[in-house]
Amino acid sequence: MQQQKKVLVLLAHGSRDPRWQEPFHQLTQQIIENQSNPVYLAFMELCSPSLEEVVAQVDSQQYQQLEIIPLFFSAGRHLRHDVPQQIEELARKYPQLSIHLQGPIGLHPKMTQTLTELIQDM
Amino acid sequence: MQQQKKVLVLLAHGSRDPRWQEPFHQLTQQIIENQSNPVYLAFMELCSPSLEEVVAQVDSQQYQQLEIIPLFFSAGRHLRHDVPQQIEELARKYPQLSIHLQGPIGLHPKMTQTLTELIQDM
Repeated sequence: MQQQKKVLVLLAHGSRDPRWQEPFHQLTQQIIENQSNPVYLAFMELCSPSLEEVVAQVDSQQYQQLEIIPLFFSAGRHLRHDVPQQIEELARKYPQLSIHLQGPIGLHPKMTQTLTELIQDM
Repeated sequence: MQQQKKVLVLLAHGSRDPRWQEPFHQLTQQIIENQSNPVYLAFMELCSPSLEEVVAQVDSQQYQQLEIIPLFFSAGRHLRHDVPQQIEELARKYPQLSIHLQGPIGLHPKMTQTLTELIQDM
């Protein structure tokens, strides 16, 4: 029997500017190289791939557990309203998928610790 | 003769939602406690204090060197256009201040390294 694999989706805000998008692709590549689970990048709005496009791909590959990791520094309207609404629609469309939205990664204590140390040297 | 002190300004996007704002105040407090230079928090738009309000305060305290550290994961229109324009206006208004805008802190190699390690455990 195949083991259920967790899929990680890095979720960034999105922008029409390709110079804004590019670092997220690089970051995703770096994470893929250090990760045994499949990792995807999705954008909330303004550019592709959208969360919906990524979830369709994940579903077609028969993964079942999906962790969404927001590349945000805090949670406002987007992470409290817009993204949960997108997830609700996706959960209806793909009832076999378990989709979980994490808190903003920028607020993780390890991230704020690194930030605090970084700024000490500036 | 008094030594020139560097002032650090953490710059976040801004939101009308106080729940979005709050973590930035906490983060700033954590950084202040681990930092010998003065540290301020400013928001690019939608809430106070604005960059202009912070710079006016910094100027009145006779600091001269100001490092703006964007709490962003990437640089799009805001960091390539809007914030540089705000800084240009402030530089005209406060010619005695040296204002420097850094790159988005979320892209610093130490931050992406921490993020990569964090996600390994998820």
